[in-house]
Amino acid sequence: MTLQRKLDRAAALAAIASVVGAKYATADEAALAPHLVEPRGLWRGRAAILVRPGTTDEVARVVSLCRDAGLAIVPQGGNTSLCGNAVPYEDFDGVIVATDRLDRVREVDVANNTITVEAGCILADLQRVAAEHDRLFPLSLGAEGSCRIGGNLSTNAGGVAVLRYGNARELMLGLEVVLPDGRVWNGLRALRKDNTGYALRHLFVGAEGTLGIITAAALKLFPLPRERVTALAALPDAAAAVALLGRLQTAVGDAVTGYEIMSRIGVAMCLRHIPGSVDPFPAPHPQYQLIELSGQRADGSLRAGLEEALAAAHADGLVRDAVIADSLAQAGAFWRLRETIPEAQKFEGGSIKHDVAVPVSRVAAFIRRATEAVEAALPGVRVVAFGHVGDGNIHFNLSQPVAGWTTAAFLAEWERMNRIVHDLAEGMGGTFSAEHGIGRLKRGELVRYRSAVEVDLMRALKAAIDPAGLMNPGKIL
Amino acid sequence: MTLQRKLDRAAALAAIASVVGAKYATADEAALAPHLVEPRGLWRGRAAILVRPGTTDEVARVVSLCRDAGLAIVPQGGNTSLCGNAVPYEDFDGVIVATDRLDRVREVDVANNTITVEAGCILADLQRVAAEHDRLFPLSLGAEGSCRIGGNLSTNAGGVAVLRYGNARELMLGLEVVLPDGRVWNGLRALRKDNTGYALRHLFVGAEGTLGIITAAALKLFPLPRERVTALAALPDAAAAVALLGRLQTAVGDAVTGYEIMSRIGVAMCLRHIPGSVDPFPAPHPQYQLIELSGQRADGSLRAGLEEALAAAHADGLVRDAVIADSLAQAGAFWRLRETIPEAQKFEGGSIKHDVAVPVSRVAAFIRRATEAVEAALPGVRVVAFGHVGDGNIHFNLSQPVAGWTTAAFLAEWERMNRIVHDLAEGMGGTFSAEHGIGRLKRGELVRYRSAVEVDLMRALKAAIDPAGLMNPGKIL
Repeated sequence: MTLQRKLDRAAALAAIASVVGAKYATADEAALAPHLVEPRGLWRGRAAILVRPGTTDEVARVVSLCRDAGLAIVPQGGNTSLCGNAVPYEDFDGVIVATDRLDRVREVDVANNTITVEAGCILADLQRVAAEHDRLFPLSLGAEGSCRIGGNLSTNAGGVAVLRYGNARELMLGLEVVLPDGRVWNGLRALRKDNTGYALRHLFVGAEGTLGIITAAALKLFPLPRERVTALAALPDAAAAVALLGRLQTAVGDAVTGYEIMSRIGVAMCLRHIPGSVDPFPAPHPQYQLIELSGQRADGSLRAGLEEALAAAHADGLVRDAVIADSLAQAGAFWRLRETIPEAQKFEGGSIKHDVAVPVSRVAAFIRRATEAVEAALPGVRVVAFGHVGDGNIHFNLSQPVAGWTTAAFLAEWERMNRIVHDLAEGMGGTFSAEHGIGRLKRGELVRYRSAVEVDLMRALKAAIDPAGLMNPGKIL
Repeated sequence: MTLQRKLDRAAALAAIASVVGAKYATADEAALAPHLVEPRGLWRGRAAILVRPGTTDEVARVVSLCRDAGLAIVPQGGNTSLCGNAVPYEDFDGVIVATDRLDRVREVDVANNTITVEAGCILADLQRVAAEHDRLFPLSLGAEGSCRIGGNLSTNAGGVAVLRYGNARELMLGLEVVLPDGRVWNGLRALRKDNTGYALRHLFVGAEGTLGIITAAALKLFPLPRERVTALAALPDAAAAVALLGRLQTAVGDAVTGYEIMSRIGVAMCLRHIPGSVDPFPAPHPQYQLIELSGQRADGSLRAGLEEALAAAHADGLVRDAVIADSLAQAGAFWRLRETIPEAQKFEGGSIKHDVAVPVSRVAAFIRRATEAVEAALPGVRVVAFGHVGDGNIHFNLSQPVAGWTTAAFLAEWERMNRIVHDLAEGMGGTFSAEHGIGRLKRGELVRYRSAVEVDLMRALKAAIDPAGLMNPGKIL
């Protein structure tokens, strides 16, 4: 780098810092550190500076200065991505734009069932604000205490209520985005219907910050459910889970809000490692199905419907045993079993993770075939499959064998296991990334499994909107 | 045109015709005529040839030949667009690609709640096939007997069940599209979750055929409702409609499937002109609210919930009178009142139409203010406002005054009335086109009401995907 370029670059960084003020800009190594590391420590990147704009206008001015100076940008929300999306690469020398100070609730329109918020709102805060207005914001996932809605939208987050309410994309009505050229696109219309040209808002959802920075969003709200029934059913196999779902949806429709499968091996890991875990039935069972229904009637009709459906399924051999929670505490215990599986897996050594989806009709066949295939390829591997059966989305995780493997040796099998599992899912009309996205981790998979036509289209969009390639470089594409 | 160019052009058209075979290609004036005229006769265009491909591959070969020859394309489904989207311009000399022969149902996956169909399927046929599998395909609108699903997706059709099930976009999981360069993009994944890069499928929905030709789609199905309750309520004003909706949603949630408002003037027009129409109440009322609930329980709980809510609303003065249909025939009569308003309007002279949406919370204010404004600007004008209150979507139609105006003179006020109504809707955070789209009719409005940033983004997308501008030229942009 010539002296002149160094001076220009220093001047640009100084100008960028001055947009947000010294208090909210840092190049200090210790202050930068938490923003440079992937949450599980998989990667550790670099950056010249981190800025924390307080307004959309500040974001726009920062982006505009970056464009003029040719500085790349990594937008960062809660940095909870599981695909390395929110952290810069090792050779990155641009700007991290953190959205944490953009955390205002701009409007709650109760009669319109919408809330308009800035990108830095923490998901759990947004849920709380909605509840204060007697409304539900249904997006719910493990990281909700620290992830931010801008990141949820940029990665099209899923979670445990997608079956009933859709993923982040479906909850979004409008966006405000700072484009790569520093202009602000105000598409914050809180409308159920708006057919005025191309659906720009959908372009930015799931784009992982590669096409611009989402600064605010208009989101859907729903009536707060007045009745909630949670049950745990013991099943002979995963096929029973799909059959039972069909019966429940016929019986109570969209009241089926959550529908999470767990194999015995995952439940057993919780019982071993998570304090307070209780085996839900006297005897072990191959699969456990967490069922949550919610609705508005509060007249006991949901519970009655669930009891009928479970009794009929029991008579038909689909359900071996079942318990409907009699208290919020019991319902909470069922959910904790499900939610602590990834935590419990950590005590069992290395874990190779997959976030696949297949058509719901093929979930059982997928689990069976994938289990057989990985067990044949790596004898002793322990399949910990759990997740959102109702969306066809299975977290098909693999724990290392009980004996004979170091964690490092097991994790070295990552690519080989990915190939087996992703080949199977894709071959069944499924996908290698259901809700976690692409980020840095799955760029190779995208090119492998998506057609040249599809990848070309994505590249054309990227080139059209971010011709200089400055937005979150090296992510997705 | 030089002789050589004429010969080249003739050769290209012959090659295009030979792709589909002589039987399915025509340049005959009489055969072309119905494909060249807007359904209401607003515009009559031209075309060199019409082809009716029978497979996606044939579509791709036609498009590829058009690209090579520089021939523009107008894709055409059922030609029921109300914005002049499906007919060519007066000076068009390219190719109409009709999708009517692409009418196969490729797959019904009952357990996955999906159906994969070709673009030329008529909407009503699709509904019927779903019902044969004990499933609901909920998209429903006036033209369903002749519109085709490819057109529904290309225009992101709305209709009478959006409140509960979403518009065409929300019912779509995957697409197959022939791109402007003749390549086929196969994005027919029937998955609830698939976060693998940019959401290409959303780009083509609502693009009105300007970015490619949708040839097939994977769509969501739902359990067939087992209980349906239809009611008509007489209301003092539109504000009561919004308040009542909030109460109903709190009481029964998403069971509120249809929610259509009609003013007295529209109902009175039906009573005057539509044979068999019956005044639903002994006395006239300012507004009528058609309410449809549907669900799975079939235990009478929906009817009970509706009765409670209506009784409470009556006690509070929100509802003046109400009747719950006791038979399918009575429910059908309520719906016919609503559906025949546009037909009845035709007997009352000229009609200037608006398809606006505002936030649901502002529907009543919009109707009041827009009514005052148009009555002040054009004394004697008769406001026939009706439509989808639950989506904030009002068909704010204006019938000519009873006396003193010719139809031609009244229709000459179209632009002036548009300005008043669209200025108001946009000023209230609304939109000038809720469900009908842009097509040819509202191109000027798009540039007027959308920011330069937004229009620039749309132009960049169009240039990236259809650089030669051959797909449905002059529509949207």
